Amino acid sequence: MNARTSFEGLEVGYDIPALPGMAEAEIQTPCLVLDLDALERNIRKMGDYARAHGMRHRVHGKMHKSVDVYRLQEDLGGACGVCCQKVSEAEVFARAGVKDVLVSNQVRGAARIDRLARLPKLGARTICCVDDIANVAELSAAAETHGTQIECLVEIDCGAGRCGVTTTPEVVALAKAIDAAPGLKFAGIQAYQGAMQHLDRYEDRKAKLDVAVAMVADAVAGLKAEGLACDIVGGGGTGSYYFESASGVYNELQCGSYAFMDADYGRILDADGQRIDRGEWENALFILTSVMSHAKADKAIVDAGLKAQSVDSGLPVVHGRDDVTYIKCSDEHGVVEDKQGVLAVGDMLRLVPGHCDPTCNVHDWYVGVRGGVVESVWPVSARGKAY
Amino acid sequence: MNARTSFEGLEVGYDIPALPGMAEAEIQTPCLVLDLDALERNIRKMGDYARAHGMRHRVHGKMHKSVDVYRLQEDLGGACGVCCQKVSEAEVFARAGVKDVLVSNQVRGAARIDRLARLPKLGARTICCVDDIANVAELSAAAETHGTQIECLVEIDCGAGRCGVTTTPEVVALAKAIDAAPGLKFAGIQAYQGAMQHLDRYEDRKAKLDVAVAMVADAVAGLKAEGLACDIVGGGGTGSYYFESASGVYNELQCGSYAFMDADYGRILDADGQRIDRGEWENALFILTSVMSHAKADKAIVDAGLKAQSVDSGLPVVHGRDDVTYIKCSDEHGVVEDKQGVLAVGDMLRLVPGHCDPTCNVHDWYVGVRGGVVESVWPVSARGKAY
Repeated sequence: MNARTSFEGLEVGYDIPALPGMAEAEIQTPCLVLDLDALERNIRKMGDYARAHGMRHRVHGKMHKSVDVYRLQEDLGGACGVCCQKVSEAEVFARAGVKDVLVSNQVRGAARIDRLARLPKLGARTICCVDDIANVAELSAAAETHGTQIECLVEIDCGAGRCGVTTTPEVVALAKAIDAAPGLKFAGIQAYQGAMQHLDRYEDRKAKLDVAVAMVADAVAGLKAEGLACDIVGGGGTGSYYFESASGVYNELQCGSYAFMDADYGRILDADGQRIDRGEWENALFILTSVMSHAKADKAIVDAGLKAQSVDSGLPVVHGRDDVTYIKCSDEHGVVEDKQGVLAVGDMLRLVPGHCDPTCNVHDWYVGVRGGVVESVWPVSARGKAY
Repeated sequence: MNARTSFEGLEVGYDIPALPGMAEAEIQTPCLVLDLDALERNIRKMGDYARAHGMRHRVHGKMHKSVDVYRLQEDLGGACGVCCQKVSEAEVFARAGVKDVLVSNQVRGAARIDRLARLPKLGARTICCVDDIANVAELSAAAETHGTQIECLVEIDCGAGRCGVTTTPEVVALAKAIDAAPGLKFAGIQAYQGAMQHLDRYEDRKAKLDVAVAMVADAVAGLKAEGLACDIVGGGGTGSYYFESASGVYNELQCGSYAFMDADYGRILDADGQRIDRGEWENALFILTSVMSHAKADKAIVDAGLKAQSVDSGLPVVHGRDDVTYIKCSDEHGVVEDKQGVLAVGDMLRLVPGHCDPTCNVHDWYVGVRGGVVESVWPVSARGKAY
């Protein structure tokens, strides 16, 4: 073996799960594996959709937290920029040269606001959300201090039950305050309906989105009546983007999970009643895991537990196999039911995680695989960036 | 403000949540905070207990993954060494100078075994567990290759349902194979009952441990009959250490969570029917979080969601307050019910995480606080070390 495709000769403590050129079977487990062919198909497909429907696609970087995945989304999918949820994530994308960065969240606290106000100095158009009049003055003061401009979207809570205001008068009042504040620019509306994305039935999701669209349309009209135009009306996730695209009101999508897919999203149904991971999107993200013990005949113990994934949305699913089932997860172990005893120590399984976002956030690396060979090893660039 | 106690003047992108000397109110949230007084009391208490009961305490490093916390456990609690679950964790502790390191888990796969066999070169006594005769030859070959010695414990599954053999003949057969293998040394038994630690009632936990002790006693006797002595008979967690200590069979404890406590462990009851976080142990670990939105009168949105914790064992509990409740967790948001509207944007809450181990593994730093002032900022040294 030569040094490029083997760990041999490396010092103790190397912290990388694979090297380009290795066979998939040589990857150190547990780790995240990307099926690059599937990933690229997903990215091109959503890019084509957005283009065909006249929507900009501001891809959600909070899902993958990876500068390299973003680059693919820009190159193959025509992404117009990135959104993320934290200022420290935005810093990672801006430092990597991304030119249009939205923190699709409230930014509060002096240190955090100060960091946000310095982002434009890295060359990035900097946008954040606002749902509180007091925040307008804070953001304005920070932008003035640094001689920068922060663009602000008013956040509407259109059903997620988290941040955001709920009435058009509140939206208008905030927009006017932003418009009048030095250092700030009113840029439009943020209206992501996060609570409906995982409803199984297409009709149930549509009903929720109809409510959201009505709220947003009313707000846009209210703003227009005051002479305030929305450059951005943003929202839309993997379970809803076709509704926003058809709304006539939204102009930016913010999808994330479509690129990787996960077990929880995969279960929702499209308009034809088909699971979205059976046609609309492909599983491109896996936790690669190995059998480490098979001392009991009907149970294989694998090396991916709670520290290799988040189980908030359910246990992972063993990809491409219906003979074995991941049934239990503890800190460093997974129990895989193996009734027929088909697995042996050393066997590898690809797990589709229950929920991709917090699972990716546990790992330091994405190992990109094509045709059974490692092609890329990318850092999870913004892992743990929580501020 | 001077440079030591403020972020002012730092470049964009600093990735540390606090600096020593800062007030707790200045810490960037969400992040992990350690109450150093409580932590030190917990560590001394368990150390005193082990000493008084003639037990060695090999503290579980997989819980905190921190070299600095281990140092406290050695200095204040008399820890005899560390155990951890992964070879890559063991490397972190060994490189930091810890002299006695047990991987309390199976080590399979050529690359992982090779890494394990090189650990003694860092100056650490190196121990691992075995439950499969095929593994003995693999470990032996690697130790011979590197001219090192790996000590091996036979792992007994005494109820956890994961790795380990279940009968004394299997234990004896493995021990004999280890004893005969070049480069290996038979060191005893690993028997951690992981499945009973969180049972609420003391009597229920005792009943499970009685079974474990009987299995271990039988195995020790079986080994003795073959002339094989156990240097280590290890096990015992925060919910059981008194049972192992009273067993007359175990000689090493492996407690982890006692040092930090968490909401799920805190609910179990001691022999007097009292919650263990109401007397036996103190909450020393918190997720510090800030209110970032309060646009709805009865709900405060905080900045600690699924990427700041693991909710596998339930939602976090707001420490020291019964007027507000953490009721919902999404990727980057927590919803805190605030019926009386007592919270305001910027307010900080200390959350006791549901499950400390996988929560610590999400973070990069521990901020140590004493008397409201930041005293230490320690890396989560082995974070993400999953191989």
